[in-house]
Amino acid sequence: MADDPQTLHDRVCRHAAQTAMLESIESVLGWDERTMMPTAGAEYRAEQTTLLAGMIHGRWTDPAFGRWLAELSDSPLAEPPHGDTAVTIRRLKRLHDRKVRLPTALVEELARTAVLGQQSWEDARRRDDFASFRPLLEKTVQLKRQEAEALGYPQCPYDALLDDYEPDELTANVAAVLAGLRERLVPLVAEVSQSGRRPDVAILTRSYPVDVQEAFGREVGAKIGFDFDRGRLDVTAHPFCDSLGPHDCRITTRYDEDYFSGAFFGILHEAGHGIYDQGLPGGHYRLPLGEAVSLGIHESQSRLWENFVGRSRSFWEHFYPRARRQFPQALGDVSPEAFYFAVNEVRPSLIRVEADEATYNLHILVRFELEQALLDGDLPVADLPGAWNEKYRQYLGIEPPDDAQGVLQDVHWSAGLIGYFPTYTLGNLYAAQLFAQADADLGGLAAQFAGGQFRPLRDWLREKIHRQGQRYSAAELIERITGRPLSPMPLVEHLRAKLGPLYGIS
Amino acid sequence: MADDPQTLHDRVCRHAAQTAMLESIESVLGWDERTMMPTAGAEYRAEQTTLLAGMIHGRWTDPAFGRWLAELSDSPLAEPPHGDTAVTIRRLKRLHDRKVRLPTALVEELARTAVLGQQSWEDARRRDDFASFRPLLEKTVQLKRQEAEALGYPQCPYDALLDDYEPDELTANVAAVLAGLRERLVPLVAEVSQSGRRPDVAILTRSYPVDVQEAFGREVGAKIGFDFDRGRLDVTAHPFCDSLGPHDCRITTRYDEDYFSGAFFGILHEAGHGIYDQGLPGGHYRLPLGEAVSLGIHESQSRLWENFVGRSRSFWEHFYPRARRQFPQALGDVSPEAFYFAVNEVRPSLIRVEADEATYNLHILVRFELEQALLDGDLPVADLPGAWNEKYRQYLGIEPPDDAQGVLQDVHWSAGLIGYFPTYTLGNLYAAQLFAQADADLGGLAAQFAGGQFRPLRDWLREKIHRQGQRYSAAELIERITGRPLSPMPLVEHLRAKLGPLYGIS
Repeated sequence: MADDPQTLHDRVCRHAAQTAMLESIESVLGWDERTMMPTAGAEYRAEQTTLLAGMIHGRWTDPAFGRWLAELSDSPLAEPPHGDTAVTIRRLKRLHDRKVRLPTALVEELARTAVLGQQSWEDARRRDDFASFRPLLEKTVQLKRQEAEALGYPQCPYDALLDDYEPDELTANVAAVLAGLRERLVPLVAEVSQSGRRPDVAILTRSYPVDVQEAFGREVGAKIGFDFDRGRLDVTAHPFCDSLGPHDCRITTRYDEDYFSGAFFGILHEAGHGIYDQGLPGGHYRLPLGEAVSLGIHESQSRLWENFVGRSRSFWEHFYPRARRQFPQALGDVSPEAFYFAVNEVRPSLIRVEADEATYNLHILVRFELEQALLDGDLPVADLPGAWNEKYRQYLGIEPPDDAQGVLQDVHWSAGLIGYFPTYTLGNLYAAQLFAQADADLGGLAAQFAGGQFRPLRDWLREKIHRQGQRYSAAELIERITGRPLSPMPLVEHLRAKLGPLYGIS
Repeated sequence: MADDPQTLHDRVCRHAAQTAMLESIESVLGWDERTMMPTAGAEYRAEQTTLLAGMIHGRWTDPAFGRWLAELSDSPLAEPPHGDTAVTIRRLKRLHDRKVRLPTALVEELARTAVLGQQSWEDARRRDDFASFRPLLEKTVQLKRQEAEALGYPQCPYDALLDDYEPDELTANVAAVLAGLRERLVPLVAEVSQSGRRPDVAILTRSYPVDVQEAFGREVGAKIGFDFDRGRLDVTAHPFCDSLGPHDCRITTRYDEDYFSGAFFGILHEAGHGIYDQGLPGGHYRLPLGEAVSLGIHESQSRLWENFVGRSRSFWEHFYPRARRQFPQALGDVSPEAFYFAVNEVRPSLIRVEADEATYNLHILVRFELEQALLDGDLPVADLPGAWNEKYRQYLGIEPPDDAQGVLQDVHWSAGLIGYFPTYTLGNLYAAQLFAQADADLGGLAAQFAGGQFRPLRDWLREKIHRQGQRYSAAELIERITGRPLSPMPLVEHLRAKLGPLYGIS
């Protein structure tokens, strides 16, 4: 006699919770590797991680787990679609199905190519030699096409890859929204570039003692709502946020004595990710009801605190007097207005990770459009550097002097991460639309920030987004909260409203 | 057809290596828990650890693993007894057998009692109320008797418990050596106590800036041979050493601004453990050929560097000028001789963990004798405080004013650790006998230390002990290296030679 659906559901949850626990252990190993481990430990750590990864993969693809989920998908527990059990069943099933559909040989080939690709890319970037990287990138594109075919897709192969980062989203939708953004952002950036005004950004590269940067960053991080009793802040070359348990969220940053913005806005950014993780329902840690919606929604939480809060005038009305006391040598002679302008500089530049709030999205547009063309076969890899440079000219008005500062700057493609880039700009778009809604719902955030009140916004985000886990897709969530589908307009309006007065443009 | 022994042996090694890898992952979680994890992470971390522990136990007690080992024990690979395959088979089999012999119900009851016992002990110690702890200690003793019966033993139940820490050692042997030590140490300590001389230990409780303590500790730790490229030093309330991989040894200490010795000798102690771990054959990490012999041998390595090297006159001939430069305010007016005398103070005291090199062993004798009597049923738990105080009077000439500073001071018994205490003094005895041999083999260590040369001693230990893994038992190893069985005399002679001139006794 078959088990009743509730028994099956509980069994599925226990299975998934144990898998999640192994994944959280993998996170502990990963965090330690990046923050603490002596370099000499790398080889054995890789073996530990491989062992765990194999156990985790085995649990996800366990045929019994698949049968239980298939049975549950046809049971009454799969309704209503946003009910607890339905969400759990649907989300676990899609992960199981994805992993089962990929042939082991392809997974291994992708992993091998990613390792070789990263070595080749590092080497090519160092020597500014795209040609040497080309064979591995061609191989990667070909394997990603096979991956898309194996996974299946609703409209185009890119859908299958995007789905890994932005579940249930379609390339066509993203492309339409991003095209709308491009139409408005390219002229806005051009206006800024042509405006005669420039902030004095040299004030941000004065001497900022690292220990004071850290103390100030911790203070502000705590103030916006990152709970240090349930988290940590450490130092790594490549900042990140990961949760090692439901009450153990670790963020990192890197400090540069001669640059204020890197660590400060980096901490706000990672704290934003961390506040999301800390707001997820801990009882369902790493299960669908307690897991982030998508990379884009996760990024929206970091960008919201970094840019919409941390680069706002009212934020600095509250914090600038403190910043000046903390860094008297660097900021003693800097007016609040000069500081605010400096942290909001918009200037077309070559390197994505150093780009400002506005032009950043143009860097993403270039990559998003190019990787679609690569995957569709419309653009041969050999033509990629030329196409890259052409798009930089069109969108940003500048052209890379070499491939090292152009098409070779990012690690993503070499690691097989195709479909990942758009989530960065989706994050900005979600953030803008959510921030505008929060501003309306909470009755004027600027006054609250100026008074040092950040809790209402955090609590709004917690209730509207964090507590929901994966109950809704990103698109559903945005529409539920803001009453309309994702649009480029809130971000454009936010940028126009901020940059207009600063740069004297309409 | 049965598999041939070599195939079986390789299968056993792969099985054990994977178990070892899970144990090493458990170590990563444990290290992180003690050094880095936010307190709020404790509950989930306990679940992660329980999951891993269950997987590890399942692998150790796997019936197939047991059958392979039983078959191999009767194969030609089980000879000669100190050959690679024989050592691997014998050591793995004893661990498998121990775990299989303990009924699950007893293991669970022991674990539960340990948790309750530690809570009850902490509470009892705080309130100086032995009576409230008595029922749980009675329960613990009774369960440990059951454990000994389940495990079996050659001569007495204590053998079975001791064997967990000091494999293949017999209570009778340890008792004989420790009795020999007691006979000579009690009068020596009494002579010291009656001598009129006293060092000025107040110089050690001056102000020693923590950052300088850390830098100096790291410098000295590296100088004696701890490899910081393959390890770390961090801060914890309870210092420890653990290896998270073959090239990833982590030691910890705690600093007190107003006390030099705690952190400094603590670092030497843990570095000594770490140097052992770093010297084990990394290719057999956590397998018999790459694992420490016993707790006693491990402790010998920490005590050797802490006391025989770090408290020697020649060590400070080299390091004292540096110490003085590092701590000019604390040591500027302190002569080398006064400093040397202060770090070698011998004075009967109540608390084991604060005891000096000589009296420490009397604290251990008290516990070793009492826990044997408890286990044999010769001493009812109710009479334990009286027996404790009586032995302190006899051996150390002092009596605890209350049980908090007496029988309730240590965590061990509350956690079910009976049979552990003697390994501390075995460590001192092994260290003394090994150090004397090294001194003879290397032609005068004192001159080397005075010249800042610590590598020859480390390399001697590496070759004689570290590289051997578990090839020999502790007793075999000591006899092979020094040509005679363990004796109390080298420790007594070491203490007499050092304390005689300092305290003006013969």
